[in-house]
Amino acid sequence: MWSNSLGKAFTVTCFGESHGPGVGATVDGCPAGLSLTIEDLQQALDLRIPQEKEVVSTRREPDTVEIFSGVFQDYTTGAPITLNIRNRDAKSSDYEQLKDVVRPGHADYPAKVKYGGFSDYRGGGRLSGRMTAAFVVAGAIARKVLSRSGVEVLAYTREIGGVRLETLPNPDDARKVTYENSMRCPDPVAAEEMRDAVLSAKADGDSVGGVVECTALNLPVGVGEPLFDALDSELAKILFGIPAVKGVEFGAGFQASRLRGSENNDQYEIKEGRITTLTNNSGGVLGGMSSGMPLLLRVAFKPPSSIAKAQKSVDVSRMEETSLSVQGRHDPCVVPKAVPVVQAMVAIGLVDLMIRGGIIPRVLKS
Amino acid sequence: MWSNSLGKAFTVTCFGESHGPGVGATVDGCPAGLSLTIEDLQQALDLRIPQEKEVVSTRREPDTVEIFSGVFQDYTTGAPITLNIRNRDAKSSDYEQLKDVVRPGHADYPAKVKYGGFSDYRGGGRLSGRMTAAFVVAGAIARKVLSRSGVEVLAYTREIGGVRLETLPNPDDARKVTYENSMRCPDPVAAEEMRDAVLSAKADGDSVGGVVECTALNLPVGVGEPLFDALDSELAKILFGIPAVKGVEFGAGFQASRLRGSENNDQYEIKEGRITTLTNNSGGVLGGMSSGMPLLLRVAFKPPSSIAKAQKSVDVSRMEETSLSVQGRHDPCVVPKAVPVVQAMVAIGLVDLMIRGGIIPRVLKS
Amino acid sequence: MWSNSLGKAFTVTCFGESHGPGVGATVDGCPAGLSLTIEDLQQALDLRIPQEKEVVSTRREPDTVEIFSGVFQDYTTGAPITLNIRNRDAKSSDYEQLKDVVRPGHADYPAKVKYGGFSDYRGGGRLSGRMTAAFVVAGAIARKVLSRSGVEVLAYTREIGGVRLETLPNPDDARKVTYENSMRCPDPVAAEEMRDAVLSAKADGDSVGGVVECTALNLPVGVGEPLFDALDSELAKILFGIPAVKGVEFGAGFQASRLRGSENNDQYEIKEGRITTLTNNSGGVLGGMSSGMPLLLRVAFKPPSSIAKAQKSVDVSRMEETSLSVQGRHDPCVVPKAVPVVQAMVAIGLVDLMIRGGIIPRVLKS
Amino acid sequence: MWSNSLGKAFTVTCFGESHGPGVGATVDGCPAGLSLTIEDLQQALDLRIPQEKEVVSTRREPDTVEIFSGVFQDYTTGAPITLNIRNRDAKSSDYEQLKDVVRPGHADYPAKVKYGGFSDYRGGGRLSGRMTAAFVVAGAIARKVLSRSGVEVLAYTREIGGVRLETLPNPDDARKVTYENSMRCPDPVAAEEMRDAVLSAKADGDSVGGVVECTALNLPVGVGEPLFDALDSELAKILFGIPAVKGVEFGAGFQASRLRGSENNDQYEIKEGRITTLTNNSGGVLGGMSSGMPLLLRVAFKPPSSIAKAQKSVDVSRMEETSLSVQGRHDPCVVPKAVPVVQAMVAIGLVDLMIRGGIIPRVLKS
Repeated sequence: MWSNSLGKAFTVTCFGESHGPGVGATVDGCPAGLSLTIEDLQQALDLRIPQEKEVVSTRREPDTVEIFSGVFQDYTTGAPITLNIRNRDAKSSDYEQLKDVVRPGHADYPAKVKYGGFSDYRGGGRLSGRMTAAFVVAGAIARKVLSRSGVEVLAYTREIGGVRLETLPNPDDARKVTYENSMRCPDPVAAEEMRDAVLSAKADGDSVGGVVECTALNLPVGVGEPLFDALDSELAKILFGIPAVKGVEFGAGFQASRLRGSENNDQYEIKEGRITTLTNNSGGVLGGMSSGMPLLLRVAFKPPSSIAKAQKSVDVSRMEETSLSVQGRHDPCVVPKAVPVVQAMVAIGLVDLMIRGGIIPRVLKS
Repeated sequence: MWSNSLGKAFTVTCFGESHGPGVGATVDGCPAGLSLTIEDLQQALDLRIPQEKEVVSTRREPDTVEIFSGVFQDYTTGAPITLNIRNRDAKSSDYEQLKDVVRPGHADYPAKVKYGGFSDYRGGGRLSGRMTAAFVVAGAIARKVLSRSGVEVLAYTREIGGVRLETLPNPDDARKVTYENSMRCPDPVAAEEMRDAVLSAKADGDSVGGVVECTALNLPVGVGEPLFDALDSELAKILFGIPAVKGVEFGAGFQASRLRGSENNDQYEIKEGRITTLTNNSGGVLGGMSSGMPLLLRVAFKPPSSIAKAQKSVDVSRMEETSLSVQGRHDPCVVPKAVPVVQAMVAIGLVDLMIRGGIIPRVLKS
Repeated sequence: MWSNSLGKAFTVTCFGESHGPGVGATVDGCPAGLSLTIEDLQQALDLRIPQEKEVVSTRREPDTVEIFSGVFQDYTTGAPITLNIRNRDAKSSDYEQLKDVVRPGHADYPAKVKYGGFSDYRGGGRLSGRMTAAFVVAGAIARKVLSRSGVEVLAYTREIGGVRLETLPNPDDARKVTYENSMRCPDPVAAEEMRDAVLSAKADGDSVGGVVECTALNLPVGVGEPLFDALDSELAKILFGIPAVKGVEFGAGFQASRLRGSENNDQYEIKEGRITTLTNNSGGVLGGMSSGMPLLLRVAFKPPSSIAKAQKSVDVSRMEETSLSVQGRHDPCVVPKAVPVVQAMVAIGLVDLMIRGGIIPRVLKS
Repeated sequence: MWSNSLGKAFTVTCFGESHGPGVGATVDGCPAGLSLTIEDLQQALDLRIPQEKEVVSTRREPDTVEIFSGVFQDYTTGAPITLNIRNRDAKSSDYEQLKDVVRPGHADYPAKVKYGGFSDYRGGGRLSGRMTAAFVVAGAIARKVLSRSGVEVLAYTREIGGVRLETLPNPDDARKVTYENSMRCPDPVAAEEMRDAVLSAKADGDSVGGVVECTALNLPVGVGEPLFDALDSELAKILFGIPAVKGVEFGAGFQASRLRGSENNDQYEIKEGRITTLTNNSGGVLGGMSSGMPLLLRVAFKPPSSIAKAQKSVDVSRMEETSLSVQGRHDPCVVPKAVPVVQAMVAIGLVDLMIRGGIIPRVLKS
């Protein structure tokens, strides 16, 4: 079966194509009584794409979002909230070359096989980064819901093109500095180096990848439904739904597999009357539940597949080998654009689990 | 809501505790007409735990599995298959110390908070590695279903305690050598070094982690349901359901984030009339669907949390700091035991997606 | 949790309010390769409301539907299909009286309690017959999918205001005559009597109910997933999702409970080389699966709750008893409007179960 | 896909066959902290089958239930609760005649087609009334959970073999008298007439059907998740999962379709400071949510299909017409046995919706 819905209690059903009428999402299960205006959503949408034109591909006209249902007198009603973002400035002609020649690293080939040749191939169609616009507006709702419980989700670039922010940034930098540069990095110096890596790849007709890190502060203890809808399980699933993701890890992650137990275990202490741990190698997840420490996860993004450099490919209708140099505007790096997407997706996952856990009520009272 | 079921078409509902009557699973949605005997399941169960007593903790009496429903005259009927494995040799007395003192790195603390003090704390109760016995027998059914489509899942140890098998093993070694040593590693030389690392940690009252790698061969193109029940999304979710997992990556994984697009893209060619790629950095997943290349993924396991070394902890009923040295039999490394579990879980995920995709029929005809 | 989605494989997520921007639905899981144009949907929408103004309440301007996603070059792509129907001609002012006074027989009171006073009360808001416009267009897609398997769903009025069509109509009348009269009844004579009953109630400021019957022809044997997603279970659930439904029965239904086994059992015979039954008291459902005989079910609709006659009610904000005469345009009977809705809902349920059963493929080839 | 699970938050996964090792259920999502002993379950199981041997078919040895998981120190832990009931006294030899000859009114024929001849045909196999033993013990847990919220579910026989209890019984009779007679009827006089009808049918080698009525008292307002997981939708779905059910109606039900709006609407008044209605034609359901009035529903059961009287049938392997007189012990009427099953199923549905609605907490504190 197809599957374009996330969540069980706070569900997000996503629809649309890169070059069709538009993209959007229906959020079902949002608590009633949340103050929600079009500005809340538009603001999130406006931050989605860095302003600096050199480092990202962007459509010329900015996106605008419509609330089609579920909000009455500026409050959510408990009914499903449908959000529509119309496509404009979509140049379908760019994509005619891709009707038969499959792009290396893209979903073109399996999509063609799976959907019997009926899938919309323009700009990746359904399997396009364009979908993330819908994720971001749905995530803006989730983040507002979380804020009512005091939970804050912060995502930022940890690494781009091999340039890595060596130390964990403090939340204040993550909160304030991230959106001040086009790399979405909480450290302006590292951001500059990352930008150089992106521009250098771009100059070569090539692309670079990177790592987005995300933290959630003030999560209560016990969020997550073991065994199988565990906190890490659910977030991992959601995060792999973002295009170009190749790895997800929590806390010390893959590095934990190289530590000894005595190094990796987060020992307990009591601080200001509250149980806490000396370290956070677990990334705030124990046995699939939040531990009360900050949630910490990292998401690896591969370099964008669409590059100007010539690559070997195949024309699937003629079954002939060919060479392909992907034309048109393309991102030399998706990581900066991915930062608000990771933030949105983590927020969506947390709200779903917190409603399921009975932590977020169905009606938010003022 | 609690959640102890995996899958939508081929569902596995898992139940039981480490020190209760037993553990088990109900497999619902298994195609009718699969030849299935108790020996098929017992054989998988027997391979679960390496024979070498030095490297693993093990209960003294071997496990036996009962088929409670869903099989008639040695064939599956299409009805739910319930499998029960009774616990024996469970020493509950070992765990009385843990009633109030929470073990660092374990789920004790969030479980106590979430379940209001009612959870079974003996041996981790529900949140115990013991559950993986149920995963393995359910996975044995999934693997038999896959074999009817020619799909083979192979898991093996790639890294333990910092000792890493440098090159990707060939499938033949993975198939034949893996279960010949107690490290479950397809390379006997690396296995020996890994074993040293495990025994050295054990001697120190400590533990080590590692990485399990898993491949699936002969997957058809198009397995996986984008956007959100994608091949990588579903497998990642399932794999994080295994205790001690801290990271999951596909193909080049986190390393892909350090490559350029021209390096990471898997270029296409035609080989023996079939579309294939020169490299497999994608790990056989494109746009959330199988690409026709071998599926390749890695799972990071943290070092076991139960160690003899003294650690700082907290007595949660008295709200007092204390020191804890976890007594009893404990694994110095879970990676060898995790190999058949990863294999089982990947098989379960693949069958679910292949039934959903209409690739595996509801009735298997001979 | 809220729940505005139907189905597991062919899912319909419904959104919108009576007096907001509009209503709509997202169909996820529609097979790729179905020819689908806006005319297919508009035609279904145009038949939704009988033309005769005396017997129904209707908005002045006709509805138009937009395909927002999932269709490319007049074929479904396998991506989610979002359908939007904008509201026009909605007189919100009619409803200010209902902000605090709850209408007998309506959902006003429980909705107010459940959603903490945040629900949109205008015209019933989310809980309005208006939603059925979305059901009908989603159902039009389902019916097109079914037609590819030769399955036809026919609904019609069996009873209105106590006037009952005594004999089961033949499929040809159901197919041709139903939409020729404003009662949606396959018998023109009975239709005339029903119309009198409706107009008589209307003249009294009152309303009448009735029964819609629905049959599905050429269903293959074995549709339905026992035990719990059985054919009758799933259809009953879906049908109770239609406003004003108070009962659902299959075949002989409640009457079967008054028969003896020897009367009620449908005995088998072989006819033209095919196994068939002498009677169809089962309504084509045995053990939750289709039997190969025509599916036959009936749905009881209560008389509309909005009536001009004065009724006792309560002002919930003042907690005072009051009298209410519901003003505005209201249906004296919803049965004629319900006929295409029942047809749509049954079709949606059947497609879902047929995809789940592997009977309808994921890609429809021409 | 197969489907043997009910519910979303409080899920019941049912397994087993009539003549295999046993039947059982896994309840996942039960709140932690519920006092639960084997006696609670055994007591419910003991009431399942009337003692009077003349009116029911029964196995000779009584059933006993085992708690396999999820309960620790006589309290639920929040982990899945698996309940096993082993089969004894199953005479498989009785059923060899049914391997190829399909019983009229039974699921034999569609099951054979759907499951490719692999289904267990002994005693109906998976599709047997035997499954209801598992429903009853799962329901006993649900009823205990409900009792913590003051909600009581009462089911009883309203009609058997055309003998109908004319007036709605009062809750006290329903509570006390129902299990005092073998008809499970709250009126002893009507019970006697019903018994005569059953015995008369039995004497003729025939069977009779009837109607079970069920009420739930003290339900809070707002239980049910519109649009599609509405209170009536969910209960109807669950109830059609009981073998032999052909119709479900709420409140005035089918009769409501013959009333006028002014008769059927339940007008509001204030009584003892509480909003209530003068009548309860809605059966306590408005817009898919509980209204605060008693839930009231009726379930139509067909006469049992297994009768001694000769019927026309077909040998499906030879494709030949034949005559069948079903031998062995069979129920002349399932209604008395169905009473505790309806009660159990309604309780299961209510707990699921009340947890989903945030009304029942995840941990029950004493």
